Amino acid sequence: MPQAGVFRCALGVSYNGNHYQGWQSQASGLTIQDKLERALAQFTALPKITTLCAGRTDSGVHGLMQVVHFDCPVQRDEMAWMRGTNRYLPDDIAVQWARDVSPGFHARGSALSRRYAYVLLESPVRPSVDAGKVGWVFRPMQLEPMLLAAQALLGEHDFTSFRAAQCQAHSPVKNLMRADIARRGAYWRFEFEASAFLHHMIRNIMGCLIAIGTAQRPPSWMAEVIEARSRDAAAPTFSPDGLYFLGPTYDPALGLPDRTPGFDWLP
Amino acid sequence: MPQAGVFRCALGVSYNGNHYQGWQSQASGLTIQDKLERALAQFTALPKITTLCAGRTDSGVHGLMQVVHFDCPVQRDEMAWMRGTNRYLPDDIAVQWARDVSPGFHARGSALSRRYAYVLLESPVRPSVDAGKVGWVFRPMQLEPMLLAAQALLGEHDFTSFRAAQCQAHSPVKNLMRADIARRGAYWRFEFEASAFLHHMIRNIMGCLIAIGTAQRPPSWMAEVIEARSRDAAAPTFSPDGLYFLGPTYDPALGLPDRTPGFDWLP
Repeated sequence: MPQAGVFRCALGVSYNGNHYQGWQSQASGLTIQDKLERALAQFTALPKITTLCAGRTDSGVHGLMQVVHFDCPVQRDEMAWMRGTNRYLPDDIAVQWARDVSPGFHARGSALSRRYAYVLLESPVRPSVDAGKVGWVFRPMQLEPMLLAAQALLGEHDFTSFRAAQCQAHSPVKNLMRADIARRGAYWRFEFEASAFLHHMIRNIMGCLIAIGTAQRPPSWMAEVIEARSRDAAAPTFSPDGLYFLGPTYDPALGLPDRTPGFDWLP
Repeated sequence: MPQAGVFRCALGVSYNGNHYQGWQSQASGLTIQDKLERALAQFTALPKITTLCAGRTDSGVHGLMQVVHFDCPVQRDEMAWMRGTNRYLPDDIAVQWARDVSPGFHARGSALSRRYAYVLLESPVRPSVDAGKVGWVFRPMQLEPMLLAAQALLGEHDFTSFRAAQCQAHSPVKNLMRADIARRGAYWRFEFEASAFLHHMIRNIMGCLIAIGTAQRPPSWMAEVIEARSRDAAAPTFSPDGLYFLGPTYDPALGLPDRTPGFDWLP
């Protein structure tokens, strides 16, 4: 809870993760959190503003609507936060919206679920125009086996098999509410929603779905991988390039935007 | 015409133009043609391969299917040209296809028309995830006035008003066969096809269309701009960021690919 005379503000932030060492602040200063906090400090002329995010993203992973909150002794109107902070941000990071929130709001703690998309180029030729923005598979993929395999992922499971060694989550049990797969032309879009995700969970799931989509493994393999509860059972971690954090969901009563407009295209 | 014992080859090439000084070779070596010719030389172990393209693109402009031809004393199969050259290209340039062509084929001279797309983000917030890949307009735009204005552009006109001072074309008279405008969410896609384009012609047309779409000018203004035959009559040259060379069209009897698969999305 912020102190008296301190206001809590929430921001929706989008970014291209290609040139950053992930979300979380590091001594190098080359993370998205570092760039955002520096821009907020410049705009407010305060020595330091510390932000807390809904879901940390890894190096190379993009954000369409990361949400952060911070406490601040100065109050600005919502357009001023957006425009003022963007003036000090690099051109691949932007604040999409700002909202005054109650002292009880918490970007991570208040989130009901998180949504991610993975965009994959299926082509004999590697990405070029979209290098760094899409994953790549050169073998032709089939939709049906992947849809079957995705069924096995839905619901509450122990996702240990898809968990990175450095994962800090309290429990490997998560509830995957949605796993949609659609293709358009040479591009595939996968969309996942869960209570929360383990570190590398989606990239590890993607490796398995691609192994199944390219017929290197049968659809039934996914249930075996889950059952094994061992990282060794799953495919290697797939590239971060095509991974987009679409954003958290909150109680609609909070009145926060639930997406960054215009990003519902494929890829 | 190539000499005896020399084979003519055509390539389809896609690239992200953000990090290059345009298509055409320069002393700096930092152009797409330089990178392509260097990769071809490395793959063939020849001292130099000179390519000729269908349509030069400016700094920051992207290519979905640039077409080049070159003559070469060594023959490789089509997959080898594609894969071998890509091994030596940076990750934002890729050869999409290669074809043996007759000695009479000429990437520029044989082209019947050229197609370009312009992708524009309409948003109060500047681009971020897609920085460098889309143009940006922060004022809301209306489709109808732009469609009316685009009608005035169609057909054969003296396009002097949209011509850059440094343009090297023999004549400012070109035939614009198509000017499509579509929106999806926050993104607009403009697509143009003409016999040929003058230097900066599309970026200058985009400046005018946006002035009309945002109601700064009436739809009838486009005909006045054309009629004036003066660069001063038109809007300022718009950003290169959202401009994509979709490729030339050739006589279908030549059997060349007419597009790079998967790039028919918006944006």
